[in-house]
Amino acid sequence: MTSAAQVLAEAEALVRPALRRTIVKLPERERRVAEYHFGWADGSAADEATSGNGGKALRSALVLGAARAVGGDARRAVPGAVAVELVHNFSLLHDDVMDADRMRRHRPAAWVRFGVGAAVLAGDALQILSLQVLTGTGDPALTDVLIDTMADLMRGQSDDLAFESRDDVTAAEYRSMAELKTGALLGGACMLGALLGGSSPERARELGRFGRHLGVAFQCADDILGIWGRADRTGKPVGADVAARKKTLPVITALADASEAGRRLAALYRRPEPPGREECASMTALIEAAGGRAAVEAEGRRQITLALACLDRAEPQKTARADLATIAEWAMHRDR
Amino acid sequence: MTSAAQVLAEAEALVRPALRRTIVKLPERERRVAEYHFGWADGSAADEATSGNGGKALRSALVLGAARAVGGDARRAVPGAVAVELVHNFSLLHDDVMDADRMRRHRPAAWVRFGVGAAVLAGDALQILSLQVLTGTGDPALTDVLIDTMADLMRGQSDDLAFESRDDVTAAEYRSMAELKTGALLGGACMLGALLGGSSPERARELGRFGRHLGVAFQCADDILGIWGRADRTGKPVGADVAARKKTLPVITALADASEAGRRLAALYRRPEPPGREECASMTALIEAAGGRAAVEAEGRRQITLALACLDRAEPQKTARADLATIAEWAMHRDR
Repeated sequence: MTSAAQVLAEAEALVRPALRRTIVKLPERERRVAEYHFGWADGSAADEATSGNGGKALRSALVLGAARAVGGDARRAVPGAVAVELVHNFSLLHDDVMDADRMRRHRPAAWVRFGVGAAVLAGDALQILSLQVLTGTGDPALTDVLIDTMADLMRGQSDDLAFESRDDVTAAEYRSMAELKTGALLGGACMLGALLGGSSPERARELGRFGRHLGVAFQCADDILGIWGRADRTGKPVGADVAARKKTLPVITALADASEAGRRLAALYRRPEPPGREECASMTALIEAAGGRAAVEAEGRRQITLALACLDRAEPQKTARADLATIAEWAMHRDR
Repeated sequence: MTSAAQVLAEAEALVRPALRRTIVKLPERERRVAEYHFGWADGSAADEATSGNGGKALRSALVLGAARAVGGDARRAVPGAVAVELVHNFSLLHDDVMDADRMRRHRPAAWVRFGVGAAVLAGDALQILSLQVLTGTGDPALTDVLIDTMADLMRGQSDDLAFESRDDVTAAEYRSMAELKTGALLGGACMLGALLGGSSPERARELGRFGRHLGVAFQCADDILGIWGRADRTGKPVGADVAARKKTLPVITALADASEAGRRLAALYRRPEPPGREECASMTALIEAAGGRAAVEAEGRRQITLALACLDRAEPQKTARADLATIAEWAMHRDR
């Protein structure tokens, strides 16, 4: 059986040269920002540190896997993978500006290094380039999928930012946000891969649903990592989400819990001052005691089950099915 | 004969309701930012102040005029006008962030009012929406034109920012930048209008070239307004470009002039301190004395002549031809 690390490494090996060749088409300044952001310049050490985790190639692996799942040739799906990676990194560049996140992949975020304007323009440039990569294939259906995907991505980011100023976000609302913000692009990746692999629209849609559920599971895992993850793996300070009192899914679930732990957590979340190290530790323990961690782990598993059901409805080719399932498992357990 | 103000007002009257209906599709936060930016909310007085100038409807008027020029119905070209206005305003939202411009249309820029993150996301949302408007027409050729247009727009913005840290930008390089940054969207507007009007690709391309030359002329006029324009018309402080020592075309031309005035101007431009009011007045006079104003006025006229030659090669319908020529004249003289 192939491991997730192998599947992701193979995808990266196939897509990365094409991605690098595409980036070269950018104007020089945006190319420099993009190459830094991708970890190809001024940071070979940092690049190594993250490549073990393979997170960078997830979307590529979905594109190629979906192409093979419908009986197509993975190599023909490479433009789809390039486009999806460009969109993903456009959104990271802009999200870091919007969220004022200073660290990305163990290094200063692009806006910290090059300035807000340069990061915004580099993001814009990657986004347009992603569209040009697909118009270059001559199949307008691909461009349509990417545009709809980006619209959902925007809406998810919009919801995420709007939630920051709300105290009454429900777990269901959060899940819908995650489906747009994280699931849309994973779903789009699968649809593009399927279409480039010669799929019927129906099969492509089932694979798209597989990717959407996978995205919600991925967000569940991300939220768990944001609270309990190891800094050396996540590339962000340990417990960063708790220190920022971010209301991710484990927190929303714990705050809604009618236990003593849930009530104490709510009191700590209402405090105006930034929490100290000890308070962060208390909050982390209370989130777990109020069932926030267990509930989100269960939700992640539920989403993976739903994802695999959609995958099977697409009647996937056997080895591609195994690879996609391996990636799905990895998405839930990528800190291990 | 119809005046430019009439042509622009008719275009705005036809496009604005469709544009407002389209903006409503945005998530609430981005819609609020967009409606403020367009001047439809929190600023009815400001809106009135700028609407007299009609600058807002230039791109719409080109789309509708190009559709009529090829014998089509202006109303069928409205989606093209909506898409182009969305792209234009996406680029303004992001450009103001990149250039740290605090004022837009006589009011605080959107990023000043709502924050950088909100302005960036609203820009992204307008851009995606522009693409969705065109994919909604079912003609992939339109989406392709818009994507290529946006790629040129990005490249122009990139060049413009890169020029800020260079001392050796030539007038020819500046013209190429202006053709991308300003001309691409005016050219794209004409191409989309022509295609929506049922044009052949060849005629659409000629009309696209008309728009590109018009864009360079428009930038020439803009550069003149940036130095000699009246603040109540431009919406920016008088002489803002000189105070910021921006190297726009009149300055580049004057600095390259081997006269006493050119040399004195160069000395003032090399000073590190921000210029005072008196120094700004000296610089403005020296730019004019070194021929910067006259040369750029001549270049603008030359571009209009080239534009009209392209327009005529498209064998335009007669009244549409007159309207487009009127707009072209207005573009060069819109401060009067």
